[in-house]
Parts: sequence; structure tokens; C-alpha cells
Amino acid sequence: MALTEAQQQEIEAARAAEGRTRRPVAPGLEALLYQAIPVLDHGFLRVVDYMGDDAAVVQAARVSYGRGTRAANEDRGLIRYLMRHRHSTPFEMCEIKYHVKLPIFVARQWIRHRTANVNEYSARYSILDREFYIPAPEHLAAQSSSNRQGRGTVLAGEEAAEVLRLLRQDAMTTYDHYAWMLNEDEAGDTVDTSRQGLARELARMNLTLNTYTQWYWKTDLHNLFHFLSLRADSHAQYEIRVYAEAMLKTVAAWVPACFEAFSEYRMGAVTLSARMLEIVRRMLAGEAVAQEGSGLSKREWRELMEVLGREAG
Amino acid sequence: MALTEAQQQEIEAARAAEGRTRRPVAPGLEALLYQAIPVLDHGFLRVVDYMGDDAAVVQAARVSYGRGTRAANEDRGLIRYLMRHRHSTPFEMCEIKYHVKLPIFVARQWIRHRTANVNEYSARYSILDREFYIPAPEHLAAQSSSNRQGRGTVLAGEEAAEVLRLLRQDAMTTYDHYAWMLNEDEAGDTVDTSRQGLARELARMNLTLNTYTQWYWKTDLHNLFHFLSLRADSHAQYEIRVYAEAMLKTVAAWVPACFEAFSEYRMGAVTLSARMLEIVRRMLAGEAVAQEGSGLSKREWRELMEVLGREAG
Amino acid sequence: MALTEAQQQEIEAARAAEGRTRRPVAPGLEALLYQAIPVLDHGFLRVVDYMGDDAAVVQAARVSYGRGTRAANEDRGLIRYLMRHRHSTPFEMCEIKYHVKLPIFVARQWIRHRTANVNEYSARYSILDREFYIPAPEHLAAQSSSNRQGRGTVLAGEEAAEVLRLLRQDAMTTYDHYAWMLNEDEAGDTVDTSRQGLARELARMNLTLNTYTQWYWKTDLHNLFHFLSLRADSHAQYEIRVYAEAMLKTVAAWVPACFEAFSEYRMGAVTLSARMLEIVRRMLAGEAVAQEGSGLSKREWRELMEVLGREAG
Amino acid sequence: MALTEAQQQEIEAARAAEGRTRRPVAPGLEALLYQAIPVLDHGFLRVVDYMGDDAAVVQAARVSYGRGTRAANEDRGLIRYLMRHRHSTPFEMCEIKYHVKLPIFVARQWIRHRTANVNEYSARYSILDREFYIPAPEHLAAQSSSNRQGRGTVLAGEEAAEVLRLLRQDAMTTYDHYAWMLNEDEAGDTVDTSRQGLARELARMNLTLNTYTQWYWKTDLHNLFHFLSLRADSHAQYEIRVYAEAMLKTVAAWVPACFEAFSEYRMGAVTLSARMLEIVRRMLAGEAVAQEGSGLSKREWRELMEVLGREAG
Repeated sequence: MALTEAQQQEIEAARAAEGRTRRPVAPGLEALLYQAIPVLDHGFLRVVDYMGDDAAVVQAARVSYGRGTRAANEDRGLIRYLMRHRHSTPFEMCEIKYHVKLPIFVARQWIRHRTANVNEYSARYSILDREFYIPAPEHLAAQSSSNRQGRGTVLAGEEAAEVLRLLRQDAMTTYDHYAWMLNEDEAGDTVDTSRQGLARELARMNLTLNTYTQWYWKTDLHNLFHFLSLRADSHAQYEIRVYAEAMLKTVAAWVPACFEAFSEYRMGAVTLSARMLEIVRRMLAGEAVAQEGSGLSKREWRELMEVLGREAG
Repeated sequence: MALTEAQQQEIEAARAAEGRTRRPVAPGLEALLYQAIPVLDHGFLRVVDYMGDDAAVVQAARVSYGRGTRAANEDRGLIRYLMRHRHSTPFEMCEIKYHVKLPIFVARQWIRHRTANVNEYSARYSILDREFYIPAPEHLAAQSSSNRQGRGTVLAGEEAAEVLRLLRQDAMTTYDHYAWMLNEDEAGDTVDTSRQGLARELARMNLTLNTYTQWYWKTDLHNLFHFLSLRADSHAQYEIRVYAEAMLKTVAAWVPACFEAFSEYRMGAVTLSARMLEIVRRMLAGEAVAQEGSGLSKREWRELMEVLGREAG
Repeated sequence: MALTEAQQQEIEAARAAEGRTRRPVAPGLEALLYQAIPVLDHGFLRVVDYMGDDAAVVQAARVSYGRGTRAANEDRGLIRYLMRHRHSTPFEMCEIKYHVKLPIFVARQWIRHRTANVNEYSARYSILDREFYIPAPEHLAAQSSSNRQGRGTVLAGEEAAEVLRLLRQDAMTTYDHYAWMLNEDEAGDTVDTSRQGLARELARMNLTLNTYTQWYWKTDLHNLFHFLSLRADSHAQYEIRVYAEAMLKTVAAWVPACFEAFSEYRMGAVTLSARMLEIVRRMLAGEAVAQEGSGLSKREWRELMEVLGREAG
Repeated sequence: MALTEAQQQEIEAARAAEGRTRRPVAPGLEALLYQAIPVLDHGFLRVVDYMGDDAAVVQAARVSYGRGTRAANEDRGLIRYLMRHRHSTPFEMCEIKYHVKLPIFVARQWIRHRTANVNEYSARYSILDREFYIPAPEHLAAQSSSNRQGRGTVLAGEEAAEVLRLLRQDAMTTYDHYAWMLNEDEAGDTVDTSRQGLARELARMNLTLNTYTQWYWKTDLHNLFHFLSLRADSHAQYEIRVYAEAMLKTVAAWVPACFEAFSEYRMGAVTLSARMLEIVRRMLAGEAVAQEGSGLSKREWRELMEVLGREAG
């Protein structure tokens, strides 16, 4: 993470400026507010605003007039019920806003989630910083041999060293040329007055996809949970999963009861098809069921045995 | 507006419970928070939460690290620029949540705006109150003779009286029968133990469309402005326009600079087609332009002359 | 279902007008096109247009140039894989448009699904027909005693008769008064020239919620599946479920491979929480697990035993 | 545009396979179907499916039973009315699906439009082709001096030559290294068996933003018009505007009456604020109005004078 002194001071100033409000306050999240959580080598994630708390979910579900006087465990029970039965609208009543710094190839995955509001730093209008993501050696994985969309073992030795060298060198070189084409210094002044400089909206095309960008990203709790169920999952690409994991921490601090219900009913949950369920029922009745005759393909059978913690064979 | 004592107390309790926050605070809206603004005969609108303020729009547009140290009039200028040039994403960074009580036929218009989050009081699960909208005599309008989707002059005399009598009588009768079918008292106990009572999800179908419902409704500032530009407009049906007007007041208290820009560039604005603009240019050049030969249909010509404040003939 | 002769002729004319196209054609759905499938006492559902077929899902998943030359069973396998692993975007590449006639209280549930396009018949602009939903005697259910949001046993005897009489009478009376207030005949001419007639946008509020309305409703296959997984479910209210069931038939005719995968992996599927899965694993290992000490609430335990087809006790 | 022989054959096969349908057919668009319209140096845009035609907009607006028997000019009049008064829902009833090949930095702008369905070629799963956008010399513009987000004069001489040389060289070098890291040939076989090869999801980060990607992109006509009003506008970046212009051609062939209305009321239209309108009225009344005292800022005054085709001074 590379915050300048000025940026750090802006963040401190924002943290220091407390005010009074009649709105619900989530003390756990107030403590984290504005602070940058480091992610990857130069990225970060920080909460810049939020709306609502656990009680706001309950209030919306009941369309109630006030904060209510029910016992906390009654609220928790309702939240668990809503999560278990996939009642999504009450969770839409909480909202959170993040400021994120992330590599462009991660931003491209992230933006597929359409039910969110986004303001990205504009490289048509401004100049991007000289910062790019270079994987740590332990994340430099080979292509998975079993999964066309995944990683296998970690690269080692000379191959690893050469990959890192190339990534660094290409990012540096393309950035140098980007800067040369722009022909502007940091203050926006022309460097070489014998040249015009290329338009920013064109020069940016010379940057590599590991260049960092940043954005404000805002979504509601239901859609955030959907994002997290996909991106904090073990099948998600490591480089986006670390952002999702940082978000999980902020959600736990913000809406602990919702977070608990989400962890229980969504993160650790499995879905069984009608046919899979039938097999589980037969096994529970003492029957020895084999893949052949099960109605499942070999692939599905393997998936089911894995879920049940049994040998596939 | 018909708040019970208990509801009023819940609202007062919520207003009294002030806390400390690091988030941006909008003092103008804090003053209004939770209070029910009466709308129509039994409806209301009240703000139950909000996120962001004028500065949050500016921050998102700049993807900045802190609250910034720019002069207020620089922020105001940027907001006006964003509004004028229809940059919508920075306005999506503010969010507001309302609790609204409204007649069902108004709710049916309102729900067409899809980019919002809604939790409505469930008549499958709960029993609706005996409250229906009866127009005030001055809003009892005849069908417009010129506009198939509008109102003409106000009804008078016996016809008006009879309309009001019928609306009241039918709402009361159908509610009485609804209550009879349910066979439950307010505590949920069976009234006539010799009967079973009809399921709530069925009994509700006997209610008339002026019965009041209520919901929590949450949206971002950009989509709220879109809603208001349609529903606070003079062509909107009176019964939804009054809700939009109440919302305008809350927006003015919340984000005064955005509200000012919206009023200037959206509420009072007109759009001229390419052909209309051409006519205006010719008129400004001193030419006498008539409908014939203008390329506009008679209807469009009338619309243009009205916009320009001139006689159509 | 109450189609007039003129409406029936319009439908026949549309069915007769065949043309040539280079687009993918789904023969099974062509056979059904435009025909009204009766639903409830006066409602219907009919497909008025569609885009794509099973192969279109595969094409989008592969971002391919043509219709492809793969074996049909390879396509089917890919579709099943996409469904099982919740890859939603390829299913968004098919689109379907329905014309539906349905009671207003059903329309109010339906419209909660926001990711669809809707054009509803406007009662501000036009006059609604004298048609209302009256449940068949076998659907006249009492409130469920165990589920606050469901139905119990069917009403019988005098209570049932009285409920039906009231529903019919109130719908008729309120419609009569609606018509009187409008003071227009079917041709739009004034009935009683001594009266002005109430504006349509006001008169409609006197109608009951079982009055039929109609709309064009268009959505993509992914969102349709989401709708169907909620509304064709046994917990959905009967009056919307019958529409969902009619839709299932149209989907089976349109995209048979997608429909099969949906039936297998979504309709009959169950979700187990992390804790529930742990219990299943222990039971499969031969352990006798009881609710106490299971970590599940009584309610969750009952739900799990039901899923596994075992006694809860 | 670089279609391989195999791709071209797939397209031809799709064009040749005509079938019969009861759905509305748009003959103008059938003629274009599947054909790739070249855009930029290696990109293209082609229509792969569509739903609806001009009459479908009218049908939805009327919620009608058949194709209707009205005169064509009556339909055209209704479409113009709907467009002029911003009735958006009937236009949502038409849908179109494109296959687009485009540089990644263009894809990043495009994807901000969220109300569309997208399936992009996955560089986690597959290998991207060695194709990058290099601007034609006449589009190699300097940064605008007046507009922070725009282009000025065209670069010339050695600077232009050097920019082109750098763009080409960096794209080639980074692609070479991408290919080396993957260690796979086109058939997916390992090139150098002494190395493992880097996972595709990682190697892609070394590519520059002018690398071409491709996707299937599907949207409805209302949202397409919104996209086009922003991206076919003269303020849009040239590299996305050329795609929008190609789309305009397909829309003109598909729904000529809607296209005409869009051109008239949206593309060539201007919006005047309340204050601007007041000034126009005063000018039309013969008054000499100057910027001072007009209530407009200098910038807004200049914008207004430009719209009216008058000298700002």
C-alpha cells in the first residue's frame, strides 16, 4: 500500500471529525471507518460510509415505526430465518461504500457485478500512478492441470524468477513510454516543449493490466453477500479473493448478526440436486450406493462424495 | 395521518437517541429525521436513514481520499457541472431511506421505478388497517376532455357528493367483509369459533385500491432525482405528486447544492428537438415562422409555442 | 378466460402470418406462440415473442462465431455444468415476452421481481373490464395455523358459501359504482349528460384487488428461472403459482436442455448449511445424532429431518 | 478486422440457415444478420439476434392482442409521441444481441452501462489472440488544451512516428512475454517441457490495454438508445464512438420508425435550463440580453450562445 503523506493526513482528518447523528450507528464499523486495509502489494480497501445496522434489517422486515423493543435474540432469530429462507429484500436496506485501489485486471472481474454504484478514477481525465501488481513468489502458480480455470502448483527456480523479472520490466517499460507520450510532469506542465504530448485517453492504452486503478464502490448488503459468496469462495481468483476477505472483516464489524447468518447459511452451505438428495437418503437408509446406477455422471459423483467427505471410489 | 400513540412514541424514542459518528452528517436532514410528514388524508412520508451529503458527491467524482479542503463554491460549481452534463454516477453515491404510508393505487404507480429497494407491509402475513383514501372535494376532478390521461374541472354539487358517498361506503363495506372473512380480532384471536376464517392472502383481495399500505423504500440520489423529475411534474397524478413534493423538501434539507442544481437544470428545463431548435434560431434571426412549413406537426407546434410563451396561432 | 371474438381473431391472424428468418428458431415454442393458456377463472398467459434457444446459451458461454458443430450431448453437458455451478450470464442471452391477464393482487406480488420489462394496461387512460377473480371452492382455504403466511384446510359449508357470495357481491357493486362514476359507455360516450363523470385515474380506486389487469412482461431466461424457483415453489401463493406453472410449460417447449438442467439442479434442489452438512456426515458415519447437541434449533432440526425423509423425533 | 477462414465459414453457415417463424421479422436487419461490420483496425460488431420491430413497441404501448390493423402512419405518430414524452417502457420491449470485438480500454468504458447482459471471452480460461489496437495516424491526437477530457490537434512528424512505434513495440513485447509465460502452443500443448507455464489468469496481467477482447452484449432498445445518446455523441471518445455509429446503422435497419424518432428528439435535441429558457423568451421579445445580468455563468452563456448559433460576445 502506498499512501502519500497527504493522503494519510486526509484520512486522519476525516477520522478525527466526529459529529452527532440520530441515525443508527454501528460502533464496530465506526472504529474501522476510513482506515485503509492493505490488500496485495499496493492495493487497499477502506470503508468510507455506511447506512444501517442489524436492527435496520429487522425494522424493514417488520416495516416498523421505531427501533423496536424486542429482545436482541429475537432479532437474531429473525435475521437467521430471513437468511435461511432467502428473503433478500430486508438485507437490501443496509448500504456500504468502499474506496478501493486494485489492479485493472481485478477491476474487470469485479465490475461484472452490476447491482452496485461505481465511480472510477478516470484515465481520460487524469494520469495514473506508476504502480503495478507483482505477485508474491508464493502466488506465482502454474496452470491447473485438472481445472481449465484455476491454478496448480507454485512455480519455482529460474522460471519463477524470469516471470517476475518480465512482469516488472514490462510494466516499467510500458509506463515509461506512457509517461513519455503524455509529455507532462506531475504538476501538469509540459516536459519537452518541442512536442505536443498524446491525449491521455489514448496514452493509457499502453499500460499493462496489472496497473493499479481505484474507485468508489457502493452496494447494499444483499448484493454484497452475493458478491462475497462468489468472490470469497475458494474457486475465486486469489487476487480478487483477498479483497473479498478484507470486506468480510468489515461486514463482521458492521452487522455481526447478519454476518453470522451469512457464514452459517451461505458461506459454508452446499446445494444438493434432487438426484443427489435421493442418494443421500438411500445411503442413510443403509444402502450401498455406487456411481454406476446412481444416475449421476462421474463428475457429479465425485463432487457429491467430496461434499460428503467420502472416498469417490 | 393516523399515527397511534405507540407509533408516535416509537418515533420520539428514535429521535431522542443521538449517537456519535465519523460519517458525514447532514444537519438539515437530521432535524427532520424520523418525523412523519402528513400526505393526503391518512398517508405520510418520513426519512428513516440517509448516507452522504453534498460533499460525498464531490468526493466520489474526484475519487478522493478525504473530505477535501476546497472552497464550498468550488464544490457547488462541480455539482452544477455534473448535473448540467448528466454525469449521473457521483449522485448515486448518496442514499436515502423512506418509510411511506400510501394508497395501494399510488403504490402501484410508484413501484414501476425499479432501481430502488422495497419492503412492503405484507397482507399475506398481517392484517391491513381500516384506512382508505377519500379525495378532498377540491381534488374530485372530471376526466380531462383534451388529455386522455388527465383531469379536467372539479366536480360539483350532487355528483360530487354522490361520488364521495360511494367511495366511502364501498371502502367501508368491503373492509367490513374482509374483517368478517378473516374472523380474527386485533389480537389475532378467533372471533366466531364456529368458523375457520379465510386465509389472509385470500381475504385481502376484497379490499379496494384506495386502501392504505406502507413500505420502506430506499434509493440513491440519482434515481431519486429521476423519480422526482417524473412524479413532481405537473403531468403526474395529484395523489403521487404530493408524495414527490414532500420528498423534494427532504432533499432540499439533505443536499442543498444538489437540490439547487436539480431545480435549475432538470425541474425547470425543457428539451427542444433538432427541428424545434432550428425554428428558434430562425425566429431569433428575425424571421416570421409559421406552423405550416415549419416541419412540425400542429401538436408539436403548439407545444413549442407554449414553451416559448407565445401564441400558437 | 374471456377472449372476445375480435381478440381471438387477432391472435389467429398473428399465428397465421409466418415469415422467414435467419435467427435461431425454437420449433416447440413456435407451436405455442400467441396462444392463450387459461389460468385461474378469467386469466391467461401467452408467449408473444422470444429470442434464442438452447444453442444460444452455449454460443454465449463460448463467445463463438457460429452455431457450432459440436454434438448435441456436448451442448447439453455444458448447459448442465453452467446450471450446477450457477454461471448465470449465458442464460441471460435468451429472452421471452409474455402477455398476461391476472388479478391485481397477483400483479402486486409479481412486480417485485425488478429485472424485467413491463407495460401494463393503464387504468388512468383506459377503462378496466368487469372481470374479477373468484376462487374455486377447493381453493378457498383457511389461514394456516402453523404458518403465518400460508393456507390451511379448505373452508366448507355455509362459511365457504358466504365468502364466495361476499367476494362476488362486493366486486360487482364496486364495479357498478366505478362505471357510474365514469359516466361513459364502452364507446366512450357520456351516459348521463347532466353529469361530468369522474376522471378515470380517480374512479379506479373504487375497484377491488381481485379485478383483472393485464400486461406485457419480458425477461431473460436467468431471471425467469429465478422467478420460477420462487413462484413455482410449493410455498408460493396458489394464485401466482398457477401462472408460474403455465410458464414452466412454455420454457420446456422453448429450451428443453436448459429446462431439464433447471429441474434437476434448482427446482428439486436443497441447500444444507455447514452445520447441517456436518450432521449428515456424522449420520453417514453411523453416529446417532439427536437434535440436542446438534447445534441446530428445533425448527432447523425439523427442516433437516424433513429434507432427509426421516422422523424428526 | 481479422476473421479466420473458419470463423468466416461459421458466419456464412449461420446466414445460410433460414427457417420459418411466427414471430415479427425485421427484413432490414435480417439482411445484416451475423455479418461482421469492421470497426477500428481489428475490431468488429455484428448482430447475432434480435426480438421485435417497430410494431412491437406500439403493441406493448397498447397492451394489444395482435399485430393490429392501424395505419402505419398512426403507429409512427405514436412512436414519435412516446419518444418525445420519454415513455421508455414500450421501447424496452425490443431486444438486440451483438457480438463485438473491441480493445480492452474501450470495453472498460462500455461496461459502465449496467443494464445489459454480457458474456466476455475469458482470459482466465482461454488465451487471447495477438491483436492490439494501433490508432490510424489521423486519430493520434494531442491532449485538448481547453477540455481536460478530450483531444486537440493531430500529432505530426517525428512525435507521431515515435508514438506509433512505441505502441506497436510495447504491445508486441508484452504479448511475446505473455506467450512465453503461458508456455503453450495454439493446440494447448506445452512448448518447453522443462517449464510448467504460468496460470492463464496470471499471465494475462502482462498484456496492454489496447489488446482486443470480445463479448456477446445484449440489451433492450430503450437502454440501447441511452447508450447511443452518450456514446454516439461528439464528446465520446473516438474509439467507442465508432462502435456506436456502427450500431446506429443496425438500429436504422431494424426499427426505422423508432430510429427516426430517436434521431429527431434525442440525438439532435438540446436541453435548456429554466434560466436559459427565460433568456430565449426575452430575446424573442426583442430584448438585447448580455451575459452580465443574465444569471448565467460565462461558461453557461457560451454554451447557450453556441446552441443558438450566435456569437458569445
